[in-house]
Amino acid sequence: MQRHMDQELSDLKDRLLQMGALVEEQIERAIAAMIERDAVLAGQVIERDRLVNRFDVEIDETCIRLLALQAPAAKDLRFVTTAMKISTELERMSDLAENICERVIELNEEPQLKPYIDLPRMAAWTMKMVRESLDAFVRQDAALARKVCADDDFVDNLTHQLFRELVSFMIENPATITRAIRLTFIGKYIERIADHATNIGELVIYMVEGKIVRHMTSPSPGPS
Amino acid sequence: MQRHMDQELSDLKDRLLQMGALVEEQIERAIAAMIERDAVLAGQVIERDRLVNRFDVEIDETCIRLLALQAPAAKDLRFVTTAMKISTELERMSDLAENICERVIELNEEPQLKPYIDLPRMAAWTMKMVRESLDAFVRQDAALARKVCADDDFVDNLTHQLFRELVSFMIENPATITRAIRLTFIGKYIERIADHATNIGELVIYMVEGKIVRHMTSPSPGPS
Repeated sequence: MQRHMDQELSDLKDRLLQMGALVEEQIERAIAAMIERDAVLAGQVIERDRLVNRFDVEIDETCIRLLALQAPAAKDLRFVTTAMKISTELERMSDLAENICERVIELNEEPQLKPYIDLPRMAAWTMKMVRESLDAFVRQDAALARKVCADDDFVDNLTHQLFRELVSFMIENPATITRAIRLTFIGKYIERIADHATNIGELVIYMVEGKIVRHMTSPSPGPS
Repeated sequence: MQRHMDQELSDLKDRLLQMGALVEEQIERAIAAMIERDAVLAGQVIERDRLVNRFDVEIDETCIRLLALQAPAAKDLRFVTTAMKISTELERMSDLAENICERVIELNEEPQLKPYIDLPRMAAWTMKMVRESLDAFVRQDAALARKVCADDDFVDNLTHQLFRELVSFMIENPATITRAIRLTFIGKYIERIADHATNIGELVIYMVEGKIVRHMTSPSPGPS
């Protein structure tokens, strides 16, 4: 029975990692589409979101089936409920990658506002957080998960910096307002992806240590 | 055993509804703080978010305990996993009420930009969605849950209208930009609260019908 259970849990982990790899790719491509002003790539990312959704439904059904048929206990139970929640976080990250691409397509209607410097930096940092949150999950590494949570502050700071810069653009030249607002939204989407990576970090700590650490860190600050 | 289980499930439902009532109140007060420009009330909402977080952790622990000790099956199992997820949705709504209040406090540093018309309408509609999503959960009413999901389009339309109006303010008078952006963010927070109500609606449909309907509806459109 336990051996069968171990196999099922190992399959579940594999599926979650496949989903994670797909979502990482979605975010990476969304950012590439922004930098390259590539509307075709943006359209592909939007289209591929349905693959992520399919993973989410499938993983959810697998978890429910495991809970119903195997009645896992202790650590295995925590693994299954955590997998369910990580799948939701990943799915929402992919929605945000899709939102980035929607704004990219709109931004392409006008000339580029300015060379993108802060946004790719924020994105690179965020992608590192996503990758490390999934690594922490695979390796059951609570220390790495804690690092991910701590890194979120850096993304929040970059978001603030970006907003201040975009506001100064808007004030200097009102013709930039629509574009600057779209870029502000992209910044906000990236910040939220980092928040989801932080959520995964917190879930991993819970899974490993059996201790709920969410709500211990402060909520992400706003656009001021 | 089943009678004991029924009692546990009934207690769980009560706690979730208490949490729901608290979150509804948080949203209502955040909007009141915005309309009345009441920084004290805004501060109270921010402070009270920790009560919501406490509910979230407690409900999560209750669900895990039920899964471990009672090994619920079929409908009861779906109820427990749904309760876990609804708790997460409610907790994120409360975070957004907190974000609204952070912007309200900042907005109070300058005179009011304009009489708020669209935002209270969006908020009223959204609060109705939150209330109905919880009613649908209590009454196990999939039809009401579907109505909640359908209502989300109306909030999305109001958000677009609001954004267009705020952009025209900014273009006409750059001195309004900072305030208009803060109001844009509040609009976005309200839109996201409505998205979370929609998520609850989809979870209720799943709980009642055993059918996953999320990802059947289109993602919420952006700020264009």
